[in-house]
Amino acid sequence: MSLLVVGSVAFDSIRTPHGQADEILGGAATYFSVAASWFTPVRVVAVVGEDFGDRHLRVFTDRAIDTAGLERAPGKTFRWRGEYKGDMNEAHTLETHLNVFEQFAPKIPETYRASEYVFLGNIDPVLQLHVRQQLPQARLVALDSMNYWIQGKHSDLLSTLATVDVLVINEGEAKMLSGHSNLRRAAEAVRKMGPRILVVKRGEHGANLFTEGSVFAAPGLPLDEVQDPTGAGDTFAGGFMGHLAKTGDLSEANLRRAVIYGSVMASFAVEEFGLGRLLRLNSQLIADRFREFKNLAHFDA
Amino acid sequence: MSLLVVGSVAFDSIRTPHGQADEILGGAATYFSVAASWFTPVRVVAVVGEDFGDRHLRVFTDRAIDTAGLERAPGKTFRWRGEYKGDMNEAHTLETHLNVFEQFAPKIPETYRASEYVFLGNIDPVLQLHVRQQLPQARLVALDSMNYWIQGKHSDLLSTLATVDVLVINEGEAKMLSGHSNLRRAAEAVRKMGPRILVVKRGEHGANLFTEGSVFAAPGLPLDEVQDPTGAGDTFAGGFMGHLAKTGDLSEANLRRAVIYGSVMASFAVEEFGLGRLLRLNSQLIADRFREFKNLAHFDA
Repeated sequence: MSLLVVGSVAFDSIRTPHGQADEILGGAATYFSVAASWFTPVRVVAVVGEDFGDRHLRVFTDRAIDTAGLERAPGKTFRWRGEYKGDMNEAHTLETHLNVFEQFAPKIPETYRASEYVFLGNIDPVLQLHVRQQLPQARLVALDSMNYWIQGKHSDLLSTLATVDVLVINEGEAKMLSGHSNLRRAAEAVRKMGPRILVVKRGEHGANLFTEGSVFAAPGLPLDEVQDPTGAGDTFAGGFMGHLAKTGDLSEANLRRAVIYGSVMASFAVEEFGLGRLLRLNSQLIADRFREFKNLAHFDA
Repeated sequence: MSLLVVGSVAFDSIRTPHGQADEILGGAATYFSVAASWFTPVRVVAVVGEDFGDRHLRVFTDRAIDTAGLERAPGKTFRWRGEYKGDMNEAHTLETHLNVFEQFAPKIPETYRASEYVFLGNIDPVLQLHVRQQLPQARLVALDSMNYWIQGKHSDLLSTLATVDVLVINEGEAKMLSGHSNLRRAAEAVRKMGPRILVVKRGEHGANLFTEGSVFAAPGLPLDEVQDPTGAGDTFAGGFMGHLAKTGDLSEANLRRAVIYGSVMASFAVEEFGLGRLLRLNSQLIADRFREFKNLAHFDA
């Protein structure tokens, strides 16, 4: 089924202990849509500048991602420069140039209006709500946010949260949003704000899924080498929502599988800089890694 | 089957965001043996001072723990004072008084010599090796250590490691011991030092089991309240070794179950200060929580 994502497209300059890359295609909407495109057709709503060329566009169109909602604006594309040190658990932002993203006002093309699965990437919660309201037929709406909005636009974020089904968020952000340092209490409080499904991303430690009366823990897959964690969270969200949109099944069992598919895609993403690994996949590799997660987590009673 | 533990018995003074406790019975050998006593008969080798009274001894004897190896020495029992702040992931040591523990020279009673399952708690690796050599009939020997010995007695620790089957250690210690910041590479390097079975404790994030050609991830159970993390690692080891000694089964499937039993016992331990929760258990509660871990980790392919 149709999956729509709203978010950023950026050029990232990244340094990690394993190397560096300059001005490579990135951004939340990019990672999300490329990851999700392995599961289901994806529609993207984002803004890019005049420096966004045909070769960048082809990254989307080669994956059959619908770019009718990719707006071109006068000026330069969003740029981010960051660095990861040591165990690479945290990105240190060195430079952010919002450029055309600063005035981003998401426009939903007519052809996108009937989208059933929606991911509201990490943008101003006022814009997220605006998008949400233009998609009345959505069956499942998921949202990402960050500490910047949790602190700076708290009441707007609460208004938006009240209209969504799923929140996909980092552990630290879930705790900040709820004011609880205990994860189970934080999850309970966040679910009362609106989203009946809460996915807590824990980086290399995996992810938790909180639903009514149930908790699921997806493990982190120990990898031989993590080259670049950039985009892992959005890639996770892409695998998660992609699987749900593909199957149309919102049962607890399938939500759990979706968390694993999210983990599978994120585990690929971090193995190379940028989108590299996500563009060279196939359904067999994805199925094999899903089985690796199953072997990793399995024990008999 | 018989399970022997060598380690510390201490009086702990603990402050956490949830309260405090003064001079309560603790120490690695205490937590380990109480946890393991729910699975199998336990024998303890440790030293206590003149201030160790009958009511302290009864904690062991009420759990049918064999205290023939509990030496009484002139002086005071080992004392530790520590504090946990914020998310309680790390203990801040405020005071350590080794007292009688400073001269601890573990003596293995004749009746303990045929012990088949052995846990060498976190003490000087020279002493650990000395104990190891007195237990030639051991079928499975596990060892704990810490950064103090990894840095200060590296070559002694390597000599001891070469003689054991299992290393149970924290994630940071595994990385320090191996010199690798990547967990999978660290595990590979540590297993080459001797222990064919490596258990990496990750606190609230769970635990990993590394064996030949296999990795297992046990989830951390999100708890409503963590009162006091003291002794969680030794309690984990007690559940892990207790289950193995009880079943005598060293298959991969049973090693994974043992990691879950370790996690089960640790999850109880942290719910109250000191040994409180570990002393009020029964086999039904343990089985119920094992099932909770199963529900937490389960997903269908």
